[in-house]
Amino acid sequence: MRSHYCGGINESNIDQDVTLCGWVHRRRDHGGVIFLDLRDRDGMAQVVFDPDTEESFAKAEKVRSEFVIQVTGRVRRRPAGTENANMPTGQVEVLGRELTILNAAATPPFPLDEHVDVGEDVRLRYRFVDLRRPEMLNRLRFRSRVTSYLRNFLDGNGFMDVETPILTRATPEGARDYLVPSRTHEGSFFALPQSPQLFKQLLMVSGVDRYYQIAKCFRDEDLRADRQPEFTQVDIEASFVNEEDLMQLTESMTRNLFKDVLDVDLPEFPRMPYSEAMQRFGSDKPDLRIPLELVDVGDLVEGVDFKVFSGPAKDPKGRVAALRVPGGGTLTRKQIDDYTKFVGIYGAKGLAYIKVNELAKGVEGLQSPIVKFLGDETAMSVMERTGAQDGDIVFFGADTATVVNEALGALRIRVGHDMDMLTSEWAPLWVVDFPMFEETDDGRLTAIHHPFTAPSCTPEELAADPVNALSRAYDMVLNGTELGGGSIRIHDEKTQQGVFRVLGIDEEEARAKFGFLLDALKFGCPPHGGLAFGLDRLVMLMTGASSIRDVIAFPKTQSATCLMTQAPGEVDEKQLRELHIRLRKPAAKAAEKGDGSEG
Amino acid sequence: MRSHYCGGINESNIDQDVTLCGWVHRRRDHGGVIFLDLRDRDGMAQVVFDPDTEESFAKAEKVRSEFVIQVTGRVRRRPAGTENANMPTGQVEVLGRELTILNAAATPPFPLDEHVDVGEDVRLRYRFVDLRRPEMLNRLRFRSRVTSYLRNFLDGNGFMDVETPILTRATPEGARDYLVPSRTHEGSFFALPQSPQLFKQLLMVSGVDRYYQIAKCFRDEDLRADRQPEFTQVDIEASFVNEEDLMQLTESMTRNLFKDVLDVDLPEFPRMPYSEAMQRFGSDKPDLRIPLELVDVGDLVEGVDFKVFSGPAKDPKGRVAALRVPGGGTLTRKQIDDYTKFVGIYGAKGLAYIKVNELAKGVEGLQSPIVKFLGDETAMSVMERTGAQDGDIVFFGADTATVVNEALGALRIRVGHDMDMLTSEWAPLWVVDFPMFEETDDGRLTAIHHPFTAPSCTPEELAADPVNALSRAYDMVLNGTELGGGSIRIHDEKTQQGVFRVLGIDEEEARAKFGFLLDALKFGCPPHGGLAFGLDRLVMLMTGASSIRDVIAFPKTQSATCLMTQAPGEVDEKQLRELHIRLRKPAAKAAEKGDGSEG
Repeated sequence: MRSHYCGGINESNIDQDVTLCGWVHRRRDHGGVIFLDLRDRDGMAQVVFDPDTEESFAKAEKVRSEFVIQVTGRVRRRPAGTENANMPTGQVEVLGRELTILNAAATPPFPLDEHVDVGEDVRLRYRFVDLRRPEMLNRLRFRSRVTSYLRNFLDGNGFMDVETPILTRATPEGARDYLVPSRTHEGSFFALPQSPQLFKQLLMVSGVDRYYQIAKCFRDEDLRADRQPEFTQVDIEASFVNEEDLMQLTESMTRNLFKDVLDVDLPEFPRMPYSEAMQRFGSDKPDLRIPLELVDVGDLVEGVDFKVFSGPAKDPKGRVAALRVPGGGTLTRKQIDDYTKFVGIYGAKGLAYIKVNELAKGVEGLQSPIVKFLGDETAMSVMERTGAQDGDIVFFGADTATVVNEALGALRIRVGHDMDMLTSEWAPLWVVDFPMFEETDDGRLTAIHHPFTAPSCTPEELAADPVNALSRAYDMVLNGTELGGGSIRIHDEKTQQGVFRVLGIDEEEARAKFGFLLDALKFGCPPHGGLAFGLDRLVMLMTGASSIRDVIAFPKTQSATCLMTQAPGEVDEKQLRELHIRLRKPAAKAAEKGDGSEG
Repeated sequence: MRSHYCGGINESNIDQDVTLCGWVHRRRDHGGVIFLDLRDRDGMAQVVFDPDTEESFAKAEKVRSEFVIQVTGRVRRRPAGTENANMPTGQVEVLGRELTILNAAATPPFPLDEHVDVGEDVRLRYRFVDLRRPEMLNRLRFRSRVTSYLRNFLDGNGFMDVETPILTRATPEGARDYLVPSRTHEGSFFALPQSPQLFKQLLMVSGVDRYYQIAKCFRDEDLRADRQPEFTQVDIEASFVNEEDLMQLTESMTRNLFKDVLDVDLPEFPRMPYSEAMQRFGSDKPDLRIPLELVDVGDLVEGVDFKVFSGPAKDPKGRVAALRVPGGGTLTRKQIDDYTKFVGIYGAKGLAYIKVNELAKGVEGLQSPIVKFLGDETAMSVMERTGAQDGDIVFFGADTATVVNEALGALRIRVGHDMDMLTSEWAPLWVVDFPMFEETDDGRLTAIHHPFTAPSCTPEELAADPVNALSRAYDMVLNGTELGGGSIRIHDEKTQQGVFRVLGIDEEEARAKFGFLLDALKFGCPPHGGLAFGLDRLVMLMTGASSIRDVIAFPKTQSATCLMTQAPGEVDEKQLRELHIRLRKPAAKAAEKGDGSEG
């Protein structure tokens, strides 16, 4: 139906006849002539109808924005002075000869031909119109290029694309499962997978050796700003490899991807132990574009008569740290108040600071509400420790290590952005040497990654001191976002049972929940490991989109609704009956006949 | 951890040191020496340990079948006379120097090193062992190659891979939906998609222009022999195209695929109208490898005094057809009885036949229980019509057209296989010109494809005579299996409402169920169409697997159970509570506290 895409015509087509199909982006009538900007996936072309082509001119007069038309005409150079340097096709136009209206269009729910701020609700409700905006279409196309690149890379490296089930059993990632009632097994439910973790491990036991899948995963969690109930994971697993093999492979994949689709040369990824990341950046996914670091000062202040500092300094679970901001002396009282509120979100009870006016004057040169509590000598040694210079501000966090890390870690990012401190566009790294477990508030241990992550110590060492055991896990971080994470997995039953024990899962429970995995470990499981990338987030970072919803064709809102299809929706009583379930409060719904008498 | 795959060593590696990893496929002790067949994804290598390498020899003595080991040694030519021409690595062996036992293995639940008939239940329960069999691993690898090829073909033709939601609204394919209760919207349910049909049409409205996805689809149907609750579809849609464009593209994709991964040159696909396929083969997916055809004889027998034939012959919904089987005169009474039972499955009340002994003798030369009922003249004209020759048998079907088509259509396939009549290995074709609708038993009309299929007539013609309206649908058939089907879709609201009306869906219902589609048709929907291939079935055909379960890594049984993970399973009362549902018969399950008092 067409000879060219609209965006595909240029000076090489001059004097050729072309047929274009697309949407009328804009119509202008000017000097007795009709100008149509015709839009398709590839771009925009200007089509001109003059009254000489009587029949087509009459049709052109009828078309409105978003009409779908087919146009045949001859390409010509635009008259001098009317070229549009902002359009790839801006040197030429098509003198229309024939016009077919393929479909009319009602006035769109929001205009597409100019930058108008449209509420996201309207955009999501009319997603099929919203996706027409070149910005959105380009993101979908970019995403397709990314997946295509990743697949070809993995195919080329001997990885097999294997599909794992969507209707499966509850998985142990710890988030809430989506459940699917079974019709054929009364009272039983499938769960949608939170990840293909166990299946990919079983594929290693099967000898698949190198597996990948671009897999849909599901978590029924309360959605934070940038989560979706279903999300997409680039899932990778390999056998007879160690962490070095996997990190090299996936780093090379990522660097090649950036080079290929963005023409960006990522630097080699530095590696940083988890403990160092927490110490220096208060985060296990530090944004290294920001040249600010946390500095411990607990040892300097533990003796002072200022409980706000000395308390956490003496507490083994506490931390007192400073964050020096070069040039931050210019921050206003209001800005500092804002930052104080900001760290409050992370549980910090306040935000102590010292402005460094003139260091040569000693404490006289410091401007701060806390210097008097610290004492002159301590204040000056803190200044020395942080490397403070005239014109700086030094912020302090003193609380449990968790609160200090989260508050100062977040403040670091916030201030870095506010003060335009970013030193580079892209800052990747590997975070390694994670602990195996973390303590919950009630003193139990939970797995930091998942319970199938191999420890770097022996089963005996693990049992003796689980809190200090490190794991063979690694996270790929880019610009403060965790792009992917993985680990070498446990491949022997003894270690697996040891980890279950630490987690308080006894043998009976382990057998009930993971019997098939324990079986698999018994029948010849090779050493193996892998990694999973969050595709939505990767594409979001690469396109600079501000929301994950902007890189998903049909996303859900934060209350897990599709505004376009109105999913989820009500279903017939008959369907529920077939599934052997009923609503808890059927009265709350439109009352349906035949319910209410049973049970 | 390795230098080569086991299957990758050959004479070019002689005198090289190699390190292999894999599973011990077989161990033999022979002449004081230990032979291990070491297996990995790529094949098998023979490793020899002699007592000279004392430590390794001792370890080699410990290994059993399916132990996971790492071996380093030198490649050498096998001694003359011990080569194995059946193994790609059969000219060489590795003289083992070092052996590391990476993991021990319990005796596998069934042996892998010989062809043993193992029940499918055991295979599915220990799927991770079953998949180790080279036959199974090769199928998974083949499937990966197929998807990779198809993706690259479609990428190369400008198609964008776009993901559509899994948690969505009930789709209109007509099968039963899998439902997912919503936690955040009490009393509401998501449905898992039966196909991405409406989403891909909406992507066309968005201007995606060319879309594909290898998509998971779900149907909660009672499983026939070769169905799965979740299956995979190669889903394609394009805008500004007609059926010719789509058939050419996907035929070329299929032929290229067969050439690339099987080195098979498929012939050009002939095209056959639906009516011809039903007439000649009793099927809308005829297996053209079988050179047998149905021949109508209704007009010849409508006057006879044999109600079994004349009744259906006179009934507008009836059919009387003959199936001539060349050389079928040799069929025994028992074989004919078997075929009679076989056609009974399809509702045929009997299987009339005429054996052609010697045509020159007239009816005397025919052997049949029915000739006397037909009369001599009719019998001979039937013989003439079918082209019968001495030594043939002619079967008859006389019933409703549906029963005759199904019974003789199936018999045709059965006899063709039984008598080794296949004329070629691969016989593809396109079936076109389907009717829009078919009548159900209660006289209503339902869509043969789906209600979004465009008719080849105008909306007015459709309304006037829906039963005879043809659609713009096309099915790709290979060896009697429908590989894929598609159509040009309706792109204007008026035609869509017209089809809904024929289907008995009034405007209110249409709005409630498909409001977003009707909206989309209003806001500038381009002409578009597409196709969907069943990937599982395609791979099954290409690999010659006898069950669809053999080309799926983790399939479900016919009762929709995963024998490995024991999905579906029971869930906590707490989970059901969060989802605002309860079991209809909680007493049937292990009684859980806190239930039974509400509602």
